[in-house]
Amino acid sequence: MTNIFQCLPKHLDEEVFETLLQKGDLKVERIISKGHASPTTGWYDQVQDEWVMVLQGEAIITLKDDKDYALGSGDYMTIPAHTKHKVTWTIPEKETIWLAIHY
Amino acid sequence: MTNIFQCLPKHLDEEVFETLLQKGDLKVERIISKGHASPTTGWYDQVQDEWVMVLQGEAIITLKDDKDYALGSGDYMTIPAHTKHKVTWTIPEKETIWLAIHY
Repeated sequence: MTNIFQCLPKHLDEEVFETLLQKGDLKVERIISKGHASPTTGWYDQVQDEWVMVLQGEAIITLKDDKDYALGSGDYMTIPAHTKHKVTWTIPEKETIWLAIHY
Repeated sequence: MTNIFQCLPKHLDEEVFETLLQKGDLKVERIISKGHASPTTGWYDQVQDEWVMVLQGEAIITLKDDKDYALGSGDYMTIPAHTKHKVTWTIPEKETIWLAIHY
């Protein structure tokens, strides 16, 4: 048994992506951000659907051709494959912990 | 965008299972318990692997031929297919909210 809020990485110069589970096309990740955002130019364009939830912290996800979504603890959304998106902001004062399911 | 801690069912005579996501063999559920436990006789024996996390509340999962696992907020574990298990206890004073990934 493991706790998703524990054993946070000490160094967060970059966002940290950890695979919790992988089987076939399924990948479940813990992502830890601390003030990080996506590069200011360009968008993520993923080949798989992604279901993402903020477990702790605060973040803003921007979908291209859509709008900004402000997420706090417990907020989740689906980002369909090839929906261009980026993380515009995460709160700098503490770690934002995400659970992401790629499927 | 939806919040996993909100819109809890008013009536919890039984545990409530809600499918958040389903695609092929993948199913993601929110489960809400409030003092519920599995039937005292018999064990769950699932054909799929299950990854389960407690988001809020407290619970005990018992694996047959293994031991009891006490889970609080953020604790997660994998229950491999055909591992006989049951939920022995959930805290009666408040809702226990689970995220379960069947894969």
